[in-house]
Amino acid sequence: MTLRIDLNADIGESYGAWRMGHDAEVLREVSSVNVACGFHAGDPSTMRATVRAAITHGVAIGAHPSLPDLQGFGRREMAISPDDAYALVVYQTGALAGFAAAAGGRLAHVKPHGALYNMAARDPALADAIAAAVHDVDRRLILVGLAASALTEAASRAGIPVAHEVFADRRYEADGSLTPRSHPDAVIHDLDIAIVQVVALATRGEVTTRTGERLRLAADTICLHGDRPDAGLAAQRIRSALTEAGVTVAPL
Amino acid sequence: MTLRIDLNADIGESYGAWRMGHDAEVLREVSSVNVACGFHAGDPSTMRATVRAAITHGVAIGAHPSLPDLQGFGRREMAISPDDAYALVVYQTGALAGFAAAAGGRLAHVKPHGALYNMAARDPALADAIAAAVHDVDRRLILVGLAASALTEAASRAGIPVAHEVFADRRYEADGSLTPRSHPDAVIHDLDIAIVQVVALATRGEVTTRTGERLRLAADTICLHGDRPDAGLAAQRIRSALTEAGVTVAPL
Amino acid sequence: MTLRIDLNADIGESYGAWRMGHDAEVLREVSSVNVACGFHAGDPSTMRATVRAAITHGVAIGAHPSLPDLQGFGRREMAISPDDAYALVVYQTGALAGFAAAAGGRLAHVKPHGALYNMAARDPALADAIAAAVHDVDRRLILVGLAASALTEAASRAGIPVAHEVFADRRYEADGSLTPRSHPDAVIHDLDIAIVQVVALATRGEVTTRTGERLRLAADTICLHGDRPDAGLAAQRIRSALTEAGVTVAPL
Amino acid sequence: MTLRIDLNADIGESYGAWRMGHDAEVLREVSSVNVACGFHAGDPSTMRATVRAAITHGVAIGAHPSLPDLQGFGRREMAISPDDAYALVVYQTGALAGFAAAAGGRLAHVKPHGALYNMAARDPALADAIAAAVHDVDRRLILVGLAASALTEAASRAGIPVAHEVFADRRYEADGSLTPRSHPDAVIHDLDIAIVQVVALATRGEVTTRTGERLRLAADTICLHGDRPDAGLAAQRIRSALTEAGVTVAPL
Repeated sequence: MTLRIDLNADIGESYGAWRMGHDAEVLREVSSVNVACGFHAGDPSTMRATVRAAITHGVAIGAHPSLPDLQGFGRREMAISPDDAYALVVYQTGALAGFAAAAGGRLAHVKPHGALYNMAARDPALADAIAAAVHDVDRRLILVGLAASALTEAASRAGIPVAHEVFADRRYEADGSLTPRSHPDAVIHDLDIAIVQVVALATRGEVTTRTGERLRLAADTICLHGDRPDAGLAAQRIRSALTEAGVTVAPL
Repeated sequence: MTLRIDLNADIGESYGAWRMGHDAEVLREVSSVNVACGFHAGDPSTMRATVRAAITHGVAIGAHPSLPDLQGFGRREMAISPDDAYALVVYQTGALAGFAAAAGGRLAHVKPHGALYNMAARDPALADAIAAAVHDVDRRLILVGLAASALTEAASRAGIPVAHEVFADRRYEADGSLTPRSHPDAVIHDLDIAIVQVVALATRGEVTTRTGERLRLAADTICLHGDRPDAGLAAQRIRSALTEAGVTVAPL
Repeated sequence: MTLRIDLNADIGESYGAWRMGHDAEVLREVSSVNVACGFHAGDPSTMRATVRAAITHGVAIGAHPSLPDLQGFGRREMAISPDDAYALVVYQTGALAGFAAAAGGRLAHVKPHGALYNMAARDPALADAIAAAVHDVDRRLILVGLAASALTEAASRAGIPVAHEVFADRRYEADGSLTPRSHPDAVIHDLDIAIVQVVALATRGEVTTRTGERLRLAADTICLHGDRPDAGLAAQRIRSALTEAGVTVAPL
Repeated sequence: MTLRIDLNADIGESYGAWRMGHDAEVLREVSSVNVACGFHAGDPSTMRATVRAAITHGVAIGAHPSLPDLQGFGRREMAISPDDAYALVVYQTGALAGFAAAAGGRLAHVKPHGALYNMAARDPALADAIAAAVHDVDRRLILVGLAASALTEAASRAGIPVAHEVFADRRYEADGSLTPRSHPDAVIHDLDIAIVQVVALATRGEVTTRTGERLRLAADTICLHGDRPDAGLAAQRIRSALTEAGVTVAPL
């Protein structure tokens, strides 16, 4: 039996004259990327360049739709209706699909960004609307959501491919939710500990929670954060550790 | 030989809580619609509803991409680069294609909006960028531009289908350009005169210019303005006049 | 003893090419107006024209700052921080004060709009941030908030003038909060009933709640809604009813 | 006779999650700053922090209003009307004045940004509208424009204080205009040459043009660019060179 997992990262988060991230380094290590679609980051010219770079590196391309909140980088929850959620996912996914087509590629997945991701992980009505949007645009698209959340459940209900996502450098609570960012231990800053977590998830499908329990968590894809200062190096070391542990890194 | 022509109108120009246009009336009379894509009008929820209405009425759906200028309704020229133009056409066309796919339809054409339309009619570099964007997203899409302009020439160079557009209620100069809106005679307010112009264009391919010359102008599609107070009635009377003159109204 | 109360309405809610409201009619009846400041409605040119019209009509001018949400007209709650709230109130209040100064007038009050108003009515930290913003821009400005809410309390704590607002056409719960818009009885559509509520509030300082209790509610200003189809007439009849009941309508 | 000149730089050009510039270093060397007001950069929270930092450093604060073009950083010319220009200058100047008041400071000047600056330097109607806006908001505000341009002329006509601006690292044409950025010699990359230009302008009021002529140019303020990688060092060396040449650096 072969162990395999996808490594993904958010890229294309520059906007106009503003630069963000380490896309070039990250693209060398991951198997999938989530490309900002203009609502939290990623103006049209940045989207074009990002999609081209992803095709050059041979990584799978996904849309990274967000709440409409450029000032807040899509990280502030908003009380949108399920209809709003449907429409903004179709809009942003379609826009990115346009760039993929224009560059001779294709879209492989959709992963909601930031506050939309978190809201969809716990709100079934919002999750269903997002799953319906992805289904209606192209039912072959994979919907990526927090492992074992309302969003991955909604994808299953909608009959579209689904990927359960886990995080390399975030702590987990006993119920499988992420430790909120307001908690001091929310982020795993120590790369060695993050690597241990990644390998446990990829090889045994389990994670040690913040409070010490062992939690079973089936993982299809691991999210790396491209905005930490050592993003390129971290990606490289995580990938090496997975390979050494006998895990093949490959797109979904 | 059968005479036929397309009747098109801009719709979906509401935004959030603001209503604009007479889409329901207009949809009953035209054969094609150009749907606002969010940059000058048309938020995602409006786009969704507009595309669904167009499919219900059986009219052909086109993207109506604009300069990024919500405050100015896309009517203020901006010094964008050809690369900017390419990217914003791909973005908006992709977004609308997403809604068309989601509603079980498909995109038939792309027509730049407002200032982008005017700039593309006279600037070959911008026109080539727009034609390349349409070509790259989907080479079967028809690019609609001002008849005999830099934009229709660019479409031909790019090898994509092209439609030459004429206007029911705008005056023409002797060189085939539209009388600028700053001129008092730019708009034909009298519906009877507009109808005479439309029938002459559709049956004989000619128009009488503001200064009295007869100008030959091959027309594939006629633009009706959906924002005049009598938009529904005007559309109905123009369509009737064409039918009486033996012209079939049909999509491109 | 003279009874007096302020009548206020939201105006200047057009944006670019989109028209909204019945500002001309409403301006003839009210004593104060809340002018949209660009974040939910009201582009700069609209703000300029609105402030000028208010000065011509001799009504008191207030800023109507909103969450940054043009698509949602500022009606969708957003998880902004108190620091965000402080900054967006200073920004929008300053911008409107610029137009007031430019037209030879001055700003009299600040009233948060939509979701920001509702959030500030129940969240003391947000309310304190808004009160601090108003205080810091100009401590003579009156902060208008829901009567007997966290926002009016925060204004008192901050030592700035405060006005308790009641609504002509909204129902109240027994605890003094507004019946949520999701409830079928949230809005009083019958103008006669709204007039009875207004007169009871202005003359006796009490309101009959949705569930029939009599609630004491000190009111400094009554909000009329300028977006109902009969906005002008409703304002006229409410003003007449107040005058007949011996209440003087005058700015705060 | 004492020689004195103002050194100014654009700051506060971050936006939301995106960082730009070297504000902390630059603030130590200049006597005036131009603060982005939200239309090309500078969200409300950034404006608040920037104004506070400027007050802490004791430098004069100016508004830096822009065309509404976040994607293009205000650098793309737009065909706005004089009325549009008036309104957007009042709006942005008012907003920044709000932050200045809130932090216990005051606004000293207004300097249009980017494409608006360039358009106003050559278009008298636009220049008059901008000068009227500044005059109407507060006639004590200094309007900063390209030396000997349509904008400084308009300020004089409007009867408001005016400052003629020259550039440390831009080349001049024989007619006093800046060498367009499209020209390979537009920018002076060599700091030593920029210093020679600055000292000649500050001490003798003259500059050597791109084509070798000596041009008389009265300068009230010198613009340093805060976005070059060596912005802090460049500012420091320019200031030192001016001091050595006997020129006092002081606000307008």
